[in-house]
Amino acid sequence: MNEQRINRQVVLKSRPLGIPQASHFDIVARPIPELAEGELLVRNDFLSVEPAMRGWVNAAANYSDAVGIGEVMRAFAAGEVVASKHAGYALGDKVMGMLGWQDYCVTSGDPIRRKVREADLPLSLSLGILGINGVTAYFALTEVGQPRPGDTVVVSTAAGAVGSAVGQLAKLAGCRTVGIAGGAEKVRLCLEEFGFDEAIDYKDPGFQDRLATACPNGVDVYHDNTGGPISDAVLSHIAKGARIVICGTASVSSWDPWPTGPRPERHLLNRSARMQGFLVWDYEHRYEEAVSRLAAWVRSGDLRYREEIIDGMEHAPGSIAELYAGANTGKRVIRLGSGR
Amino acid sequence: MNEQRINRQVVLKSRPLGIPQASHFDIVARPIPELAEGELLVRNDFLSVEPAMRGWVNAAANYSDAVGIGEVMRAFAAGEVVASKHAGYALGDKVMGMLGWQDYCVTSGDPIRRKVREADLPLSLSLGILGINGVTAYFALTEVGQPRPGDTVVVSTAAGAVGSAVGQLAKLAGCRTVGIAGGAEKVRLCLEEFGFDEAIDYKDPGFQDRLATACPNGVDVYHDNTGGPISDAVLSHIAKGARIVICGTASVSSWDPWPTGPRPERHLLNRSARMQGFLVWDYEHRYEEAVSRLAAWVRSGDLRYREEIIDGMEHAPGSIAELYAGANTGKRVIRLGSGR
Repeated sequence: MNEQRINRQVVLKSRPLGIPQASHFDIVARPIPELAEGELLVRNDFLSVEPAMRGWVNAAANYSDAVGIGEVMRAFAAGEVVASKHAGYALGDKVMGMLGWQDYCVTSGDPIRRKVREADLPLSLSLGILGINGVTAYFALTEVGQPRPGDTVVVSTAAGAVGSAVGQLAKLAGCRTVGIAGGAEKVRLCLEEFGFDEAIDYKDPGFQDRLATACPNGVDVYHDNTGGPISDAVLSHIAKGARIVICGTASVSSWDPWPTGPRPERHLLNRSARMQGFLVWDYEHRYEEAVSRLAAWVRSGDLRYREEIIDGMEHAPGSIAELYAGANTGKRVIRLGSGR
Repeated sequence: MNEQRINRQVVLKSRPLGIPQASHFDIVARPIPELAEGELLVRNDFLSVEPAMRGWVNAAANYSDAVGIGEVMRAFAAGEVVASKHAGYALGDKVMGMLGWQDYCVTSGDPIRRKVREADLPLSLSLGILGINGVTAYFALTEVGQPRPGDTVVVSTAAGAVGSAVGQLAKLAGCRTVGIAGGAEKVRLCLEEFGFDEAIDYKDPGFQDRLATACPNGVDVYHDNTGGPISDAVLSHIAKGARIVICGTASVSSWDPWPTGPRPERHLLNRSARMQGFLVWDYEHRYEEAVSRLAAWVRSGDLRYREEIIDGMEHAPGSIAELYAGANTGKRVIRLGSGR
């Protein structure tokens, strides 16, 4: 049956020094090999696009090995098992995992992170609010941020897929939430869709003052996705015992030369505060705990999300750079075979 | 009886913008007031000199209010109760606390941190290894550093009063210890007196390479007293889950302008590592726990210390700057009335 199928794959053509652009990728078409015993074939319905992909293709030391030149772009994807010689997977199973930017994935099962059992909810959510974004928000906030009722929680990239979830989870934890986002539309989303108590535009010339006014008792938890001037501003307002969650470095366009900034040590010392890196992989063994809670809040309406669904694999190569340009509102996914 | 006594006091004359120099202080002589009901008179035998004093006299926001112009310099001191109208203190009690750079302290008892009950050990130790330095080392390492047997623990200002204790406590916790210090003599002290497994001179042009060689499995705990280029070098070598204890910022000569450096976020993110400020005041309620353990290790010979005892109050004003110049080896105390 596989002979009719062509597998389009987005492969890494050259290694970027910074944010990957469309020109760093090629789209190739390859035949799908016959399944060996113990393998299965997944048809990808949704491909994920996320900021961390920059790290996956850069040569600089990172938390995972870099994608090789000519290899299929590493990516989360969600789809359906369409052929199986694997005892653990049956035709029709919905799965998500590191299936790559491609139409089909032949696999022994290792890259599959989970079977998607939330049949009442859209499959694409397993790449967003019920996937790595939601799980990141859940563990980053609860395990590193450790919010207490009454805390002031500040979130950067607050209208983004992770930030918007962090803000809502912090509200569920009884905190006061202040979102930082770029531009009037994202500020509006923070307030009207994601329920932040306050939202501030970091492009506003009065940003520093507005931040101080919004956090009269200081910042107890700061969830950061930027690693730049926004963080520097927030650090000046941390409260005693503050927890700063380093979840991403979206504001850093290149690591060569290494970016510099005001030293944070004195702020941390004066406030007995903590700055801690968060990698969602550290919580892989607790993934289902997070998904089951997140799914319940999605069903009850307590946890809102936005998706930006783009049809067609041809939009994948340029999509990482667009994320860094801040063009998206909502979790960006590439939909394949939109007629399914 | 007080009329015979003159109380010499080191008072703050002008506010430094950085490291306080001798010229920022005056020594004045004042009469000792009669004790009111509920007060006691302490004769100071030892005055403490420590890096944190810079923060106590600078105007910049810090963890405690600045010493006022004309006020007695805030300082730990240890001495003996020589008059008492306070029910809690008797003649001959040894005490230590925030008694100031002066011969005598009239007090209602609030500034006294503890009665010194280790009668078999020198009173001056209550300002060092059995005082704020030892207590700092104990809680900074155990509560923030959280060492596990087999960890590699790196310590900056490793020959200093706090650093040398951190290294020895880390050895007691089953860790491998690497000290960083300035100059051959301090490196020798680290190895021969304080039992570090390795010691590296940060002034050595090969410092970066030697650090990498000394930490082949990365740095699990980094106790930092510097907040400058030494930290930046160590950050490049942190292991997964590293704990970085920010205990001091000795390498920063001024906070105006605020110092800059390579941004730490990416290191923390890639290694799920933590950087946390430590203030010993946060553990004030557990002071006796630390002192009793430290005293036992001092008695058993497992915990060594160096003191640099200088006779005469006239040496106090210039002594903070000398600490920052790295001139001392061992905990510096000013001894008063050396004939006692």
